[in-house]
Amino acid sequence: MDSETFRRHGHEVVDWVADYLRDAGNYPVLPKVQPGQIRAQLPPQPPAGGEPMEAILRDFRNVILPGITHWNHPRWFAYFPANNSGPSILAELISAGLGVNAMNWQTSPAATELEERVMDWVRQMIGLPEEFRGVIQDTASTATLCALICARERASGFSVNRRGLPAWPAHRPFRIYASQEAHSSVEKGVRLAGFGSENLVKIPVDGKFAMDPAPLAAWIAADRASGYTPCAIVATVGTTSSTAVDPVPELARIALREGLWLHVDAALAGSAAILPEKRWLLEGCDGADSLVFNPHKWLFTNFDCSAFFVRRPEALTAAMSILPEYLRTDQDRQVTNYRDWGIQLGRRFRALKLWFVIRSFGVEGLQTKLRDHIAWAAEFAGWVDESPAFERLAPVPVNTVCFRFNPGKVKAEPAPEEELDRRNKALMDAVNATGRIFLTHTRLGGRYCLRLCVGQTQTRRDDVALAWELLQQCAGKLT
Amino acid sequence: MDSETFRRHGHEVVDWVADYLRDAGNYPVLPKVQPGQIRAQLPPQPPAGGEPMEAILRDFRNVILPGITHWNHPRWFAYFPANNSGPSILAELISAGLGVNAMNWQTSPAATELEERVMDWVRQMIGLPEEFRGVIQDTASTATLCALICARERASGFSVNRRGLPAWPAHRPFRIYASQEAHSSVEKGVRLAGFGSENLVKIPVDGKFAMDPAPLAAWIAADRASGYTPCAIVATVGTTSSTAVDPVPELARIALREGLWLHVDAALAGSAAILPEKRWLLEGCDGADSLVFNPHKWLFTNFDCSAFFVRRPEALTAAMSILPEYLRTDQDRQVTNYRDWGIQLGRRFRALKLWFVIRSFGVEGLQTKLRDHIAWAAEFAGWVDESPAFERLAPVPVNTVCFRFNPGKVKAEPAPEEELDRRNKALMDAVNATGRIFLTHTRLGGRYCLRLCVGQTQTRRDDVALAWELLQQCAGKLT
Repeated sequence: MDSETFRRHGHEVVDWVADYLRDAGNYPVLPKVQPGQIRAQLPPQPPAGGEPMEAILRDFRNVILPGITHWNHPRWFAYFPANNSGPSILAELISAGLGVNAMNWQTSPAATELEERVMDWVRQMIGLPEEFRGVIQDTASTATLCALICARERASGFSVNRRGLPAWPAHRPFRIYASQEAHSSVEKGVRLAGFGSENLVKIPVDGKFAMDPAPLAAWIAADRASGYTPCAIVATVGTTSSTAVDPVPELARIALREGLWLHVDAALAGSAAILPEKRWLLEGCDGADSLVFNPHKWLFTNFDCSAFFVRRPEALTAAMSILPEYLRTDQDRQVTNYRDWGIQLGRRFRALKLWFVIRSFGVEGLQTKLRDHIAWAAEFAGWVDESPAFERLAPVPVNTVCFRFNPGKVKAEPAPEEELDRRNKALMDAVNATGRIFLTHTRLGGRYCLRLCVGQTQTRRDDVALAWELLQQCAGKLT
Repeated sequence: MDSETFRRHGHEVVDWVADYLRDAGNYPVLPKVQPGQIRAQLPPQPPAGGEPMEAILRDFRNVILPGITHWNHPRWFAYFPANNSGPSILAELISAGLGVNAMNWQTSPAATELEERVMDWVRQMIGLPEEFRGVIQDTASTATLCALICARERASGFSVNRRGLPAWPAHRPFRIYASQEAHSSVEKGVRLAGFGSENLVKIPVDGKFAMDPAPLAAWIAADRASGYTPCAIVATVGTTSSTAVDPVPELARIALREGLWLHVDAALAGSAAILPEKRWLLEGCDGADSLVFNPHKWLFTNFDCSAFFVRRPEALTAAMSILPEYLRTDQDRQVTNYRDWGIQLGRRFRALKLWFVIRSFGVEGLQTKLRDHIAWAAEFAGWVDESPAFERLAPVPVNTVCFRFNPGKVKAEPAPEEELDRRNKALMDAVNATGRIFLTHTRLGGRYCLRLCVGQTQTRRDDVALAWELLQQCAGKLT
């Protein structure tokens, strides 16, 4: 495709994206397609000859778009958001055009130095101390895996990378501690790094679904007595189910006393720390060894963009660095080579979009958006609390409300839990089938509950109100 | 940013990208900046208030662009390419606009089903048997780490994920085998997965820098005798230094006989297998357990897009799957949930760009581009061979020529190797300092050598000829 053909179709695609940003709310959030339905419309063999872009874009609109789940819909309340914004999309377009691989300083000095600078902006925005240094990772899953590997290496005197975990005295396996509500990526990271799921100790949570530090301290002591080697604590600030906040100050004290790596998974809630009134969320994190949160969740920066901070970067680079001859450059001692800050050698130029977003919104603009989301979630929680037919199942420290339909709550005849589970699953399916909103579920204390997470860029108060109205309507029709 | 403001700046950015694609050859390939020079131009604090996009785009042009290394330059001959194309950039723009997270089928059925279909197209294009199934990973580093973890799990009866490597009988550590010329990501993966570098056996190479299968078989036998557990072989099709091709058919026979996982790293050279005359590159790969190659290197698809194929997907999903309540959906038994096919939970919608590229070029269009690159690399190799002052240091099975300046080669007075190393480093620095081309180095058999890799989308024969001319000119000026 020559540059003039690109220009012509580029303008067409920009118009389509602009229309999409304006009209996303007109699509059903969740598409009405059956498994295999999209695939069946795609030819089983690749085309031998080239096809005109007109045909490809037409098929995008007619075949692909009807099978898209609209993460950018103003009434996306499911999971956690992966939000987005105009400035971020513009930067992604430039980044795609440049096609830079930011593995080394030399392979794009500006990509590396912008990442250093903008990650330091982010550090200041969430109030981490100066000694923390940041790197952009693709996802919190990857960042948490990196943190666990750092913990493994530090605890073994950096010998596992060299000699392997089996050479680590077999009678003293490492132990990792996280709450029962920690994200699945923690267990996955524990597996991938070779610790074994059985060495992940899931510490019980309190009534607010946050880690209880008392059993943690007891477990660590018991593990030491039984011949295990406590290695790391993973604290969660904003659990995936209910955005519960582990007591990081207390966990930091335990980690310091016990010599454990403390990693903080603040994937969603970390963004809220840009608000002075929510800065408490990261209290104690100055004592963490590493922290991750995702601007691609709730800071208007396209997926993927995960902000990973380490207090002592040398622990990360010692674990990750490898320097074959073909990657050596004259500047290696003077510069940051981000390939040594993570798993992948190749790296996209992702700092650009974070820079565009922070400059375009300004810190105050970002704060305004987050304050709105938090206020509307609180308002929704209030409606749930006041309703005779619904009940809230967890506190709402940020933007996510866990609740269920329970019309018997005011009567003397509570329904059996299995019956409530069934009805709430039916309610979720019913509201999602309208295509007008999309929300998902979890279980808290064994109970099936619905989650409403307010975090999309285009969400307004009306959208949250409509969700509440729809939930009431659909609940009224449940048998 | 409202959709009309996005539209306005989107058109402006599309024009800039179109101009860039046309004019990339006018920039110095490698920017002339000192460490810290770009960072010093960026404010140390984030802006409180929002800034107009005009100012941001101006700073992009004035501050960032002068520090960009131009991977899309027609005279990019360094490392391996990360090439690019108009259709791919258009798809990246749409993907950024949609902001889809393709972690589950439900979170975008079309993203999942397009990925299934287009990865099957790619499978057919490179001639892998039908039982192979594909998934898009970010990089070959990640894919190779996944393969090593699969190998670890299969060899341990899927028990390491559960019990940890220390629980694997400590007197029988796993061993991984790869050639001395294997990519650094193999050793990094061996470390990250907990095997330990000392358990990576680097098998010697033959005169063509390909793995010698005789010592491999001997090492495996010796390791078994010494109480190790042979676990996996990583074969390289197209090494990073010289694109050497390991004898995969023989390695596949050994892997089958010994019950080892065979992973093939064809990161660059796999693309060439779309040419019937280069199909031999992947000979024997039907016996591999996994294979990775990077359409983002040499198939005109923006970084990142790494094609990872597994012969028995259940080995991959058994190693990677984890299903917390909040990710359960009604369709889980009927669909592919790609989150279980890799390390990350979140996944970008990358199948779109691969689909755009294959349809826009057509298989024949892609073949034509690759044939040109290969022919020009062969022509350059011929110039080197005929020159009295240069010598070639490795065969050229695809598109990369390893060579050095050695004016004494025809005389009876060969220069000392250290002197040749120094002069070739100086030659590389001199040609790169012109800004007109960019190439990098490696070492082969201890010798410092220059590499010229022909693979950029916009490279023409004239660009390769200019590289040769510049090398001769700069060599003539060397003291």
